[in-house]
Amino acid sequence: MKRIAIDMDEVIADAAEKHLKLYNQHFKETIMIDDIKGKKLRDLRPHLESEIKSFFAEPTFFRDLNVIEGSQEVIKKLSQHYEIFITTAAMEFPSSFTAKYEWLKEHFPFLSDMNFVFCGDKSIIHADYLIDDNVRHFKRFCGQGILFTASHNMHETGYVRVNNWNEVQDYFLK
Amino acid sequence: MKRIAIDMDEVIADAAEKHLKLYNQHFKETIMIDDIKGKKLRDLRPHLESEIKSFFAEPTFFRDLNVIEGSQEVIKKLSQHYEIFITTAAMEFPSSFTAKYEWLKEHFPFLSDMNFVFCGDKSIIHADYLIDDNVRHFKRFCGQGILFTASHNMHETGYVRVNNWNEVQDYFLK
Repeated sequence: MKRIAIDMDEVIADAAEKHLKLYNQHFKETIMIDDIKGKKLRDLRPHLESEIKSFFAEPTFFRDLNVIEGSQEVIKKLSQHYEIFITTAAMEFPSSFTAKYEWLKEHFPFLSDMNFVFCGDKSIIHADYLIDDNVRHFKRFCGQGILFTASHNMHETGYVRVNNWNEVQDYFLK
Repeated sequence: MKRIAIDMDEVIADAAEKHLKLYNQHFKETIMIDDIKGKKLRDLRPHLESEIKSFFAEPTFFRDLNVIEGSQEVIKKLSQHYEIFITTAAMEFPSSFTAKYEWLKEHFPFLSDMNFVFCGDKSIIHADYLIDDNVRHFKRFCGQGILFTASHNMHETGYVRVNNWNEVQDYFLK
Protein backbone atom coordinates (compact mmCIF):
# COMPACT_ATOMS: atom_id res chain seq x y z
CA MET A 1 0.00 0.00 0.00
CA LYS A 2 1.53 3.31 -1.01
CA ARG A 3 1.77 6.07 1.55
CA ILE A 4 0.62 9.70 1.36
CA ALA A 5 1.89 12.24 3.90
CA ILE A 6 -0.38 15.26 4.29
CA ASP A 7 0.47 18.61 5.83
CA MET A 8 -2.00 20.43 8.14
CA ASP A 9 -1.90 24.21 7.81
CA GLU A 10 -3.30 25.52 4.49
CA VAL A 11 -3.88 21.91 3.34
CA ILE A 12 -6.47 20.54 5.77
CA ALA A 13 -6.62 23.38 8.35
CA ASP A 14 -7.26 27.00 7.38
CA ALA A 15 -4.68 28.78 9.52
CA ALA A 16 -4.13 31.70 7.11
CA GLU A 17 -7.76 32.86 7.30
CA LYS A 18 -7.79 33.03 11.11
CA HIS A 19 -4.32 34.54 11.23
CA LEU A 20 -5.26 37.39 8.87
CA LYS A 21 -8.46 38.03 10.83
CA LEU A 22 -6.54 38.31 14.12
CA TYR A 23 -3.92 40.52 12.49
CA ASN A 24 -6.55 42.90 11.05
CA GLN A 25 -8.37 43.09 14.37
CA HIS A 26 -5.18 43.78 16.30
CA PHE A 27 -3.67 46.36 13.93
CA LYS A 28 -7.00 47.79 12.74
CA GLU A 29 -6.18 46.98 9.14
CA THR A 30 -8.32 45.55 6.33
CA ILE A 31 -5.86 43.39 4.43
CA MET A 32 -7.62 40.77 2.27
CA ILE A 33 -6.26 37.32 1.39
CA ASP A 34 -5.95 38.55 -2.24
CA ASP A 35 -3.58 41.30 -1.08
CA ILE A 36 -0.99 38.72 -0.06
CA LYS A 37 -1.09 36.53 -3.15
CA GLY A 38 2.32 35.08 -3.87
CA LYS A 39 3.71 36.16 -0.53
CA LYS A 40 3.22 35.96 3.20
CA LEU A 41 1.80 38.59 5.49
CA ARG A 42 5.26 39.16 6.97
CA ASP A 43 6.56 40.11 3.50
CA LEU A 44 3.90 42.85 3.32
CA ARG A 45 4.67 44.19 6.81
CA PRO A 46 8.31 43.17 7.44
CA HIS A 47 8.66 45.60 10.37
CA LEU A 48 5.93 43.64 12.21
CA GLU A 49 7.43 40.17 11.64
CA SER A 50 7.69 39.15 15.29
CA GLU A 51 4.17 40.40 16.13
CA ILE A 52 2.81 38.57 13.07
CA LYS A 53 4.49 35.35 14.21
CA SER A 54 3.29 35.75 17.78
CA PHE A 55 -0.34 34.97 16.90
CA PHE A 56 0.73 31.40 16.07
CA ALA A 57 2.44 30.99 19.43
CA GLU A 58 -0.83 31.40 21.33
CA PRO A 59 -1.51 27.85 22.65
CA THR A 60 -5.09 27.69 21.38
CA PHE A 61 -4.51 29.31 17.97
CA PHE A 62 -4.65 25.99 16.11
CA ARG A 63 -7.59 24.52 18.09
CA ASP A 64 -10.55 26.06 16.23
CA LEU A 65 -9.32 26.45 12.65
CA ASN A 66 -11.80 25.77 9.87
CA VAL A 67 -11.34 22.54 7.95
CA ILE A 68 -10.25 23.05 4.33
CA GLU A 69 -13.19 22.18 2.10
CA GLY A 70 -13.31 18.61 0.87
CA SER A 71 -10.33 17.38 2.87
CA GLN A 72 -12.30 15.14 5.23
CA GLU A 73 -14.27 13.38 2.51
CA VAL A 74 -11.33 12.89 0.16
CA ILE A 75 -8.89 11.72 2.87
CA LYS A 76 -11.51 9.23 4.04
CA LYS A 77 -11.71 7.84 0.49
CA LEU A 78 -7.92 7.88 0.04
CA SER A 79 -7.44 5.98 3.29
CA GLN A 80 -9.09 2.95 1.69
CA HIS A 81 -6.37 2.74 -0.93
CA TYR A 82 -3.37 4.46 0.66
CA GLU A 83 -1.70 4.64 4.03
CA ILE A 84 -2.32 8.20 5.28
CA PHE A 85 -0.01 10.11 7.64
CA ILE A 86 -0.57 13.67 8.82
CA THR A 87 2.84 15.37 8.93
CA THR A 88 2.92 18.84 10.38
CA ALA A 89 5.82 21.18 11.08
CA ALA A 90 4.94 21.84 14.72
CA MET A 91 8.37 22.49 16.21
CA GLU A 92 8.40 26.19 15.31
CA PHE A 93 5.48 26.68 17.72
CA PRO A 94 5.83 23.99 20.42
CA SER A 95 2.90 25.52 22.28
CA SER A 96 0.73 24.29 19.40
CA PHE A 97 1.18 20.53 20.04
CA THR A 98 -1.92 19.92 22.12
CA ALA A 99 -4.23 22.10 20.04
CA LYS A 100 -3.08 20.44 16.82
CA TYR A 101 -3.54 16.98 18.29
CA GLU A 102 -7.04 17.74 19.57
CA TRP A 103 -8.03 19.37 16.28
CA LEU A 104 -6.97 16.25 14.36
CA LYS A 105 -8.83 13.94 16.77
CA GLU A 106 -11.98 16.08 16.34
CA HIS A 107 -11.99 16.52 12.57
CA PHE A 108 -10.24 13.34 11.39
CA PRO A 109 -11.46 10.73 13.89
CA PHE A 110 -11.12 7.99 11.28
CA LEU A 111 -7.32 8.37 11.25
CA SER A 112 -5.16 6.67 13.87
CA ASP A 113 -3.09 9.02 16.00
CA MET A 114 -0.24 6.56 15.43
CA ASN A 115 -0.18 8.21 11.97
CA PHE A 116 0.25 11.77 13.26
CA VAL A 117 3.75 13.23 12.97
CA PHE A 118 4.85 16.50 14.58
CA CYS A 119 8.21 17.44 13.14
CA GLY A 120 10.36 20.26 11.84
CA ASP A 121 12.49 19.24 8.86
CA LYS A 122 10.20 17.08 6.70
CA SER A 123 13.05 15.28 4.95
CA ILE A 124 12.64 12.82 7.84
CA ILE A 125 9.29 11.69 6.36
CA HIS A 126 9.33 8.33 4.61
CA ALA A 127 6.39 8.37 2.23
CA ASP A 128 5.64 8.03 -1.47
CA TYR A 129 3.87 11.40 -1.68
CA LEU A 130 3.83 14.59 0.36
CA ILE A 131 0.94 17.05 -0.09
CA ASP A 132 2.16 20.38 1.27
CA ASP A 133 1.79 24.10 0.66
CA ASN A 134 5.47 24.87 1.38
CA VAL A 135 7.84 24.02 -1.44
CA ARG A 136 10.83 24.05 0.93
CA HIS A 137 9.69 20.66 2.26
CA PHE A 138 10.03 19.06 -1.19
CA LYS A 139 13.74 19.78 -1.62
CA ARG A 140 15.03 16.80 0.35
CA PHE A 141 11.81 14.74 0.46
CA CYS A 142 12.38 11.18 -0.75
CA GLY A 143 9.06 10.84 -2.62
CA GLN A 144 6.87 12.90 -4.94
CA GLY A 145 6.01 16.37 -3.66
CA ILE A 146 2.56 17.71 -4.49
CA LEU A 147 2.04 21.43 -3.99
CA PHE A 148 -1.34 22.30 -2.52
CA THR A 149 -2.31 25.77 -3.71
CA ALA A 150 -2.35 28.43 -1.04
CA SER A 151 -2.33 32.17 -1.39
CA HIS A 152 1.38 32.44 -0.60
CA ASN A 153 2.53 29.83 -3.16
CA MET A 154 0.55 31.09 -6.20
CA HIS A 155 3.66 31.99 -8.17
CA GLU A 156 5.68 28.83 -7.49
CA THR A 157 6.36 26.87 -10.65
CA GLY A 158 8.01 23.57 -11.44
CA TYR A 159 5.97 21.46 -9.04
CA VAL A 160 3.05 19.06 -9.40
CA ARG A 161 0.21 21.27 -8.19
CA VAL A 162 -3.31 20.59 -6.93
CA ASN A 163 -5.69 23.50 -6.39
CA ASN A 164 -8.18 21.84 -4.09
CA TRP A 165 -9.24 18.47 -2.67
CA ASN A 166 -11.23 17.55 -5.81
CA GLU A 167 -7.97 17.69 -7.70
CA VAL A 168 -6.26 15.58 -5.02
CA GLN A 169 -8.99 12.99 -5.48
CA ASP A 170 -8.52 13.03 -9.27
CA TYR A 171 -4.74 12.71 -8.89
CA PHE A 172 -4.88 9.65 -6.67
CA LEU A 173 -8.13 7.89 -7.49
CA LYS A 174 -8.76 8.42 -11.22
CA MET B 1 25.83 12.72 5.35
CA LYS B 2 24.11 9.62 6.71
CA ARG B 3 21.28 10.02 9.16
CA ILE B 4 20.75 8.44 12.58
CA ALA B 5 17.32 8.53 14.23
CA ILE B 6 17.44 8.14 18.00
CA ASP B 7 14.58 7.22 20.33
CA MET B 8 14.12 9.00 23.69
CA ASP B 9 12.78 6.74 26.45
CA GLU B 10 15.28 4.10 27.63
CA VAL B 11 17.81 5.34 25.04
CA ILE B 12 18.58 8.91 26.09
CA ALA B 13 15.96 9.43 28.85
CA ASP B 14 15.59 7.06 31.79
CA ALA B 15 11.81 6.74 31.97
CA ALA B 16 11.80 3.18 33.35
CA GLU B 17 13.68 4.14 36.53
CA LYS B 18 11.28 6.96 37.45
CA HIS B 19 8.26 4.90 36.47
CA LEU B 20 9.24 2.01 38.73
CA LYS B 21 9.94 4.41 41.60
CA LEU B 22 6.50 6.00 41.26
CA TYR B 23 4.87 2.57 41.00
CA ASN B 24 6.63 1.29 44.14
CA GLN B 25 5.70 4.43 46.08
CA HIS B 26 2.07 4.27 45.00
CA PHE B 27 1.51 0.54 45.54
CA LYS B 28 3.95 0.19 48.47
CA GLU B 29 5.96 -2.44 46.62
CA THR B 30 9.71 -2.96 46.30
CA ILE B 31 10.08 -4.24 42.75
CA MET B 32 13.62 -3.81 41.42
CA ILE B 33 14.62 -3.21 37.81
CA ASP B 34 16.18 -6.71 37.81
CA ASP B 35 12.77 -8.23 38.65
CA ILE B 36 11.37 -7.13 35.31
CA LYS B 37 14.23 -8.29 33.10
CA GLY B 38 12.91 -9.41 29.73
CA LYS B 39 9.46 -8.01 30.34
CA LYS B 40 7.58 -4.87 31.24
CA LEU B 41 6.09 -3.96 34.58
CA ARG B 42 2.61 -4.49 33.17
CA ASP B 43 3.53 -8.14 32.39
CA LEU B 44 4.36 -8.65 36.07
CA ARG B 45 1.14 -7.01 37.30
CA PRO B 46 -1.33 -7.43 34.41
CA HIS B 47 -4.34 -6.61 36.60
CA LEU B 48 -2.86 -3.14 37.18
CA GLU B 49 -2.17 -2.36 33.51
CA SER B 50 -4.23 0.85 33.31
CA GLU B 51 -2.84 2.20 36.60
CA ILE B 52 0.70 1.37 35.45
CA LYS B 53 0.11 3.26 32.20
CA SER B 54 -1.46 6.23 33.97
CA PHE B 55 1.86 7.40 35.45
CA PHE B 56 3.05 8.21 31.90
CA ALA B 57 -0.04 10.30 31.20
CA GLU B 58 0.83 12.79 33.92
CA PRO B 59 1.86 15.93 31.91
CA THR B 60 5.14 16.46 33.77
CA PHE B 61 6.24 12.80 33.96
CA PHE B 62 8.79 13.18 31.16
CA ARG B 63 10.12 16.59 32.26
CA ASP B 64 12.68 15.55 34.89
CA LEU B 65 13.93 12.16 33.70
CA ASN B 66 17.60 11.38 34.18
CA VAL B 67 19.75 11.44 31.06
CA ILE B 68 21.07 8.00 30.05
CA GLU B 69 24.79 7.92 30.75
CA GLY B 70 27.03 8.91 27.88
CA SER B 71 24.24 9.88 25.51
CA GLN B 72 24.97 13.62 25.50
CA GLU B 73 28.71 13.25 24.86
CA VAL B 74 28.35 10.57 22.19
CA ILE B 75 25.48 12.27 20.34
CA LYS B 76 27.51 15.49 20.30
CA LYS B 77 30.39 13.60 18.66
CA LEU B 78 28.09 11.76 16.26
CA SER B 79 26.48 15.01 15.16
CA GLN B 80 29.78 16.04 13.58
CA HIS B 81 29.64 13.09 11.19
CA TYR B 82 25.95 12.20 10.94
CA GLU B 83 22.65 14.01 10.72
CA ILE B 84 20.91 13.34 14.06
CA PHE B 85 17.13 13.22 14.55
CA ILE B 86 15.37 12.47 17.83
CA THR B 87 12.33 10.35 17.02
CA THR B 88 10.00 9.60 19.89
CA ALA B 89 6.68 7.78 20.01
CA ALA B 90 4.75 10.52 21.77
CA MET B 91 1.24 9.96 20.43
CA GLU B 92 0.33 7.35 23.04
CA PHE B 93 0.63 10.07 25.70
CA PRO B 94 -0.22 13.37 23.98
CA SER B 95 0.00 15.14 27.33
CA SER B 96 3.75 14.44 27.17
CA PHE B 97 4.52 16.70 24.18
CA THR B 98 5.57 19.82 26.04
CA ALA B 99 7.58 18.01 28.73
CA LYS B 100 9.46 15.98 26.10
CA TYR B 101 10.20 19.08 24.06
CA GLU B 102 11.47 21.04 27.06
CA TRP B 103 13.56 18.08 28.26
CA LEU B 104 15.25 17.85 24.85
CA LYS B 105 15.93 21.60 24.74
CA GLU B 106 17.48 21.41 28.22
CA HIS B 107 19.67 18.33 27.82
CA PHE B 108 20.48 18.39 24.09
CA PRO B 109 20.76 22.14 23.38
CA PHE B 110 23.23 21.46 20.56
CA LEU B 111 20.52 19.74 18.48
CA SER B 112 18.10 21.77 16.37
CA ASP B 113 14.44 21.33 17.30
CA MET B 114 13.81 21.06 13.56
CA ASN B 115 15.28 17.57 14.07
CA PHE B 116 12.80 16.50 16.77
CA VAL B 117 10.03 14.16 15.64
CA PHE B 118 7.01 13.23 17.76
CA CYS B 119 5.25 10.35 16.09
CA GLY B 120 3.49 7.03 16.63
CA ASP B 121 4.30 4.47 13.94
CA LYS B 122 8.05 4.87 13.28
CA SER B 123 7.92 3.35 9.81
CA ILE B 124 7.37 7.00 8.78
CA ILE B 125 10.99 7.77 9.72
CA HIS B 126 13.37 8.19 6.79
CA ALA B 127 16.83 7.52 8.17
CA ASP B 128 19.77 5.19 7.65
CA TYR B 129 19.79 3.97 11.26
CA LEU B 130 17.30 3.86 14.11
CA ILE B 131 18.57 3.38 17.67
CA ASP B 132 15.58 2.20 19.70
CA ASP B 133 14.75 -0.07 22.64
CA ASN B 134 11.52 -1.36 21.09
CA VAL B 135 11.98 -3.99 18.40
CA ARG B 136 8.48 -3.39 17.04
CA HIS B 137 9.75 -0.17 15.44
CA PHE B 138 12.29 -2.07 13.33
CA LYS B 139 9.76 -4.22 11.48
CA ARG B 140 8.83 -1.68 8.83
CA PHE B 141 11.75 0.72 9.29
CA CYS B 142 13.51 1.45 5.99
CA GLY B 143 17.06 1.51 7.43
CA GLN B 144 19.18 -0.46 9.89
CA GLY B 145 17.59 -0.97 13.29
CA ILE B 146 19.94 -0.93 16.29
CA LEU B 147 18.52 -2.30 19.53
CA PHE B 148 19.57 -0.30 22.58
CA THR B 149 19.61 -2.62 25.58
CA ALA B 150 16.92 -1.97 28.15
CA SER B 151 15.66 -4.19 30.91
CA HIS B 152 12.55 -5.20 28.96
CA ASN B 153 14.38 -6.24 25.76
CA MET B 154 17.12 -8.43 27.35
CA HIS B 155 15.88 -11.60 25.70
CA GLU B 156 15.34 -10.23 22.19
CA THR B 157 17.62 -11.86 19.65
CA GLY B 158 18.29 -11.39 15.96
CA TYR B 159 19.00 -7.66 16.12
CA VAL B 160 22.13 -5.54 16.03
CA ARG B 161 22.45 -4.67 19.71
CA VAL B 162 24.31 -1.98 21.62
CA ASN B 163 24.46 -2.14 25.42
CA ASN B 164 25.37 1.46 26.18
CA TRP B 165 26.54 4.69 24.55
CA ASN B 166 30.18 3.57 24.47
CA GLU B 167 29.09 0.79 22.16
CA VAL B 168 27.10 3.25 20.04
CA GLN B 169 30.27 5.33 19.68
CA ASP B 170 32.26 2.25 18.66
CA TYR B 171 29.61 1.21 16.14
CA PHE B 172 29.51 4.55 14.36
CA LEU B 173 32.92 6.12 14.89
CA LYS B 174 35.44 3.27 14.91
